[in-house]
Amino acid sequence: MTDSKKVERGPGKRERLASAAAEVLHTQGVAQTTLADIAKAAEVPVGNVYYYFKTKDQLVEAAIDAHSRTLDGMIAALDELPTPADRLKALLGGWVEQRELTARYGCPTGTLASELDKRADGLDRSIAAVIEALLNWTERQFAQMGRADARELAVALIAAHQGISLLTNTFRDPDLMTTEARRLERWIDSLT
Amino acid sequence: MTDSKKVERGPGKRERLASAAAEVLHTQGVAQTTLADIAKAAEVPVGNVYYYFKTKDQLVEAAIDAHSRTLDGMIAALDELPTPADRLKALLGGWVEQRELTARYGCPTGTLASELDKRADGLDRSIAAVIEALLNWTERQFAQMGRADARELAVALIAAHQGISLLTNTFRDPDLMTTEARRLERWIDSLT
Repeated sequence: MTDSKKVERGPGKRERLASAAAEVLHTQGVAQTTLADIAKAAEVPVGNVYYYFKTKDQLVEAAIDAHSRTLDGMIAALDELPTPADRLKALLGGWVEQRELTARYGCPTGTLASELDKRADGLDRSIAAVIEALLNWTERQFAQMGRADARELAVALIAAHQGISLLTNTFRDPDLMTTEARRLERWIDSLT
Repeated sequence: MTDSKKVERGPGKRERLASAAAEVLHTQGVAQTTLADIAKAAEVPVGNVYYYFKTKDQLVEAAIDAHSRTLDGMIAALDELPTPADRLKALLGGWVEQRELTARYGCPTGTLASELDKRADGLDRSIAAVIEALLNWTERQFAQMGRADARELAVALIAAHQGISLLTNTFRDPDLMTTEARRLERWIDSLT
């Protein structure tokens, strides 16, 4: 009884805190966020947070893990599609779907990387690993399209997404994302 | 005597503080920076800072003005070149020159925009105006090349720079900037 209660209490709250951390860090940034902000968003008493996470950095790490799991789920869904070009275009479609949120707060992983990269304290490596996973998947798609320059093309596509996310955010203009995604779609077609 | 001393002291220290602010905000980010950090970098006694800037936000605004002046100087130099394609390629060349600094701290204006965009308190509009000026100049180059889609191409080029700056920074790899700049050069050639 005690054991099953512990199991139920443990992962549930821990995951809720990790998801809330990912969300609050996206809207407020790391430096402006307190443990209390995350506790509130997760609807967990702030005193309880310390049971799972001793420091804000541990919660940032958990948020990065949450991003990693989200990415894994997205990649698994994309991999159901028949051709590499279909999969890359579906990736673009996902970016367009997120355009309103991007206009308000930027890309969740990109803005987190931008902030953590100034610190170089290990958390920057953790977020780099998440972006690297997306980059490797994208490279595999271009390789399956028969491109010898698959890595360079993957870097260009992921960079295009990060850059247009920043401009969409800076100008608060979701249409920038839509227009650039259409241009990238034509570019992918031109590569096959 | 008193007057000339005031003039010498006024703009000199103010500009030194603004340049120091731009530099320190680039390496540390806004939230992690104190007025004392900027005073130290400018070699101005911290008590003197309040004579010119009452709040950190006023110093951030001054740093954005400093970025704007740097951009104006860069654009004036680029405008000396004979053709729009030359000018755009020289812009790429400047990005490649900055690749080591970008690998360490990201793009000075882009990372500042990324952080301020989460706040939406007016400073985000000031940094947007700087990026808009570069975007408008870039659009004029593509228009002079006879492109009807000059705005879309300008957004794509500036987005590519912002995105590859973020990846260069995230992976601490200056070569990413060099490779992407070469790809963009070939792209510019393909548009003429």
